[in-house]
Amino acid sequence: MVYVAIMGHGVVGGGVAEVLRKNAASIAKKAGQEIVIKRILDLREFPDSPYADRFTKNPDDIIHDPEIAIVIETMGGLHPAYEFVKACLENGKSVVTSNKELVAAKGDELLAFAKQHNLNFLFEASVGGGIPILRPINQCLTANEVYEIAGILNGTTNFMLTKMIEEDMSFDEALSLAQRLGYAERDPSADIDGHDTCRKVCILAALGFGKHVYPAQVHTEGIRGVSLTDVKYAAAAGYAIKLIGRARARDDGRIFCMVAPMLVPKDNLLSDVRDVFNAIMVRGDAIGDVMFYGRGAGALPTASAVVADVIDEVKHIARRKMIFWESGSDDYVCPYTEDQTAAMVRLTADLPETAKAAVTAAFGEVRWIALIGQPENELCFLTEVQNEQTLAQTLQGLSGVQIQSCIRLFGE
Amino acid sequence: MVYVAIMGHGVVGGGVAEVLRKNAASIAKKAGQEIVIKRILDLREFPDSPYADRFTKNPDDIIHDPEIAIVIETMGGLHPAYEFVKACLENGKSVVTSNKELVAAKGDELLAFAKQHNLNFLFEASVGGGIPILRPINQCLTANEVYEIAGILNGTTNFMLTKMIEEDMSFDEALSLAQRLGYAERDPSADIDGHDTCRKVCILAALGFGKHVYPAQVHTEGIRGVSLTDVKYAAAAGYAIKLIGRARARDDGRIFCMVAPMLVPKDNLLSDVRDVFNAIMVRGDAIGDVMFYGRGAGALPTASAVVADVIDEVKHIARRKMIFWESGSDDYVCPYTEDQTAAMVRLTADLPETAKAAVTAAFGEVRWIALIGQPENELCFLTEVQNEQTLAQTLQGLSGVQIQSCIRLFGE
Repeated sequence: MVYVAIMGHGVVGGGVAEVLRKNAASIAKKAGQEIVIKRILDLREFPDSPYADRFTKNPDDIIHDPEIAIVIETMGGLHPAYEFVKACLENGKSVVTSNKELVAAKGDELLAFAKQHNLNFLFEASVGGGIPILRPINQCLTANEVYEIAGILNGTTNFMLTKMIEEDMSFDEALSLAQRLGYAERDPSADIDGHDTCRKVCILAALGFGKHVYPAQVHTEGIRGVSLTDVKYAAAAGYAIKLIGRARARDDGRIFCMVAPMLVPKDNLLSDVRDVFNAIMVRGDAIGDVMFYGRGAGALPTASAVVADVIDEVKHIARRKMIFWESGSDDYVCPYTEDQTAAMVRLTADLPETAKAAVTAAFGEVRWIALIGQPENELCFLTEVQNEQTLAQTLQGLSGVQIQSCIRLFGE
Repeated sequence: MVYVAIMGHGVVGGGVAEVLRKNAASIAKKAGQEIVIKRILDLREFPDSPYADRFTKNPDDIIHDPEIAIVIETMGGLHPAYEFVKACLENGKSVVTSNKELVAAKGDELLAFAKQHNLNFLFEASVGGGIPILRPINQCLTANEVYEIAGILNGTTNFMLTKMIEEDMSFDEALSLAQRLGYAERDPSADIDGHDTCRKVCILAALGFGKHVYPAQVHTEGIRGVSLTDVKYAAAAGYAIKLIGRARARDDGRIFCMVAPMLVPKDNLLSDVRDVFNAIMVRGDAIGDVMFYGRGAGALPTASAVVADVIDEVKHIARRKMIFWESGSDDYVCPYTEDQTAAMVRLTADLPETAKAAVTAAFGEVRWIALIGQPENELCFLTEVQNEQTLAQTLQGLSGVQIQSCIRLFGE
C-alpha cells in the first residue's frame, strides 16, 4: 500500500480523486500495490466527498507526514505551488503535477532538485491534458533526432476558431459561446492571448531538445487579431487558421520557438483538429511526422495523465525516472525576426489597383486570394517564404494601404 | 558498451543498422552507454555495408555469443523467427522485434518465457511502424479502463482507398499504382485481404485488454469487395471508407474483435488519415478518445521504434519491463454475429420501386443515398444499428434484388 496526498481539490484534483477511487482495483493491479489517498489539501470544505475526513487546510499535514510517499499537486499557479512542491521534495516525497505554469517556469530547477534527492518529478498532465506526449517523446522517439514539435495546445482557442471556421461566428460570438459552455474563463486572456500555449510549448521544447525554454523567451501572439474575414480568406485558399505553438531546432544548437495563429494547409491533419481537442506533431529524422491527439483539458482526461504518472512512480518507487533537461540560457532561443515565414496579408486601400501594383512591386509575384462578396477596397494575398523582419518592413513600406492582418503560414 | 545483433538485414533490419550508426552519439547519451552492432544475420552478402565484416549466415554465431546482450529480430514471418527468438531468450538475451506475425501468434508464450528467464521481449515496432502506441497504452493510459481500440493499421490499403476517394481511381488502378510505388507486394493479399491489419489488432487487443487474441479468432474482411461506386455513395452520405481493425471490451469480460472496411464519419479524425499513414484510436473511461498518428511502415520509421525499444532495454538492462498478457481462450472473442452494426447497402434490381418497397418493409425507414449519375436500377441506403446476423438474414431475404455490397458503419 502506498499513501498519496492531493494538493488542490479543484477540477483536476477532484478528477484525480475520482479516478483513483473508481478504477482502484485495476490501478492497484497495474501499480503492483494499492494506492490510498491519505490527505487532500484545500481551503474549502467538501462534506459530500467520499474523502471528506481526509481534507486539511494545512500543507504541513502533507509535507511533514512521513507516511505519504507521493504528492499530487493540482493547485495551479506559480505560488504557493512552487514552495509546496519544493518542500515535498525536500521531505522525501516524489511529486506529480498538472501545473504547466510551474513546470514552464521552474521545471529545470525542480527536476535538478528531484534528481539531487533521488526522487521523481513527473508532469505528463501539464501538456495536452490526457494525451500521452511527454513520455512518448522521452521514451519512444529516442532513436530520433527530433527537429520540430508543433501543435494545437489550447482547447479554448481551438473551439473558438472551429466555430468561426464552421459556423461563421465572429470572434466575439465564439468567445461568448466558449464562456457560456465553460470552456473559457471570465477573463479569457491566458487562453486567447496565447500564454497557456506558450507555457506548453516551453515544456515540449525543453523535453524535445534538452534545454529549458522560459516563457518570456517565446514570441507569443494570441488570436485576438484573427477575424472571421481572415478565416474566410484562409478557407478560400485551402487553409484553416489554428493557434500553433511551435519549436524548431536550428543547426547551430539554438532553437526557434513561437506561439501565433497560423494558416495550416488542409492536407495537414492539424487542420482537421476540431473543437476543444488538442494535437501535437513531432518531427524526427527517422520517424517523419507523428501526431498525438485527444482532449487537452477537462477533469477526467487530465486526471488520467496524473494518475498514470502516479502509477509509474509507484511501480518505480525509490528509483529515478530519467526525465531531465538543462537550464536555459539567454541566447538559446533565437529572435523570431531571424526566422523565415510565408504569410497571408489582408489590406484595404482607397485605390486597390494602385495598391495591387505596389504589392507586386514590393513582394514580386504573390498569390491573390479572391472571396465571393469581397469589398472592392480589400485585397488579400499569400507571400513567398521570406525573412520575418523583411516581411514586416516591406509591409510597413507599402504606401496608400491599411494592413488589416498578417497571418503566418505553417509550412514545412 | 552493449553488444547487440540483428537477425535479418532487410528493409527494417537495414534501417535499424542505419539509425544506430547515424544517431550513435545521441543514442549513447540517451541509453547511458554505447550500443555496438556485433553481428548481423543474413543469408545474403552486403559487401558495401559499413558492417560488412560482421555479417554471418549462422544463427548460432549470435545465439551462442555470450557477449551479445540484446538481439533485434527483423526477419519477419513465423519460422524460423520463432525458434531463433526462443533460442536467444534461452541463452539469456533480451529480444526486440518488429515481427507482427510472430507477436500475434506467439506473443503470450514469448512474454511468459521472457518473464521466466527475467529478460525482456519488446515489440513496439510490430504495430503502427514508428508510431508510439504499445508503450503509451501500457504506461500512459493505465489510469483508464480502456474499452475500445480501433484504427487504420495498414498503409497499403489506406493508400489505395485514398486514391479511390480523392482521385476516382478504381480498385485495380489503385492497386497497380501501389505496386508501382512499392507500397504493395506483387502478391498483395496479406494487405488487401486484411491479414496484416488482423495481426496488429490482435496485438493491440492483447495489450489493451490483457489477454492474447489469436488471428484465427478475428473475423477478417479485406477491401477486395470495395468498389469506387461504394466509395462515392459513402462520400455522398458524409463518410470515408477505411479498412478498420477494431477491438471492443464487453461487460462480460469477453471482447469483440474484427477487421473490415467501414464507413467512417467525416467528423471523425480517422476519416482524414490519408495515404500510407496509420492512426490508432484508443477509448478510455477517463481520457475519452486519444489518437496516435504517423507512418505505419517504411525502413526508418519502423527502425525508429525498434531502436527506441533497444535503448529502453539498455537503460533497464537486467531489469524486467512490465509488459505482459495472459494466454487467450477459445470463448474469449465473441462471435461477430452477436455484435451490433449499422451498414451501407448497395443493390441492383430490375424493378427498383418494388425493391425500394421491399427494403422498407424489411428494414423499416432507411436513409436512402442518392448519387449524381446513379444507374436507374441501383439503390443504396443506410440501415439502423442492428444485430449482425439479423442484418445478414434480412438482406438474404430480400427478393428480386442483387446485393452488390454491404459495408459497416464505424459507429460509437
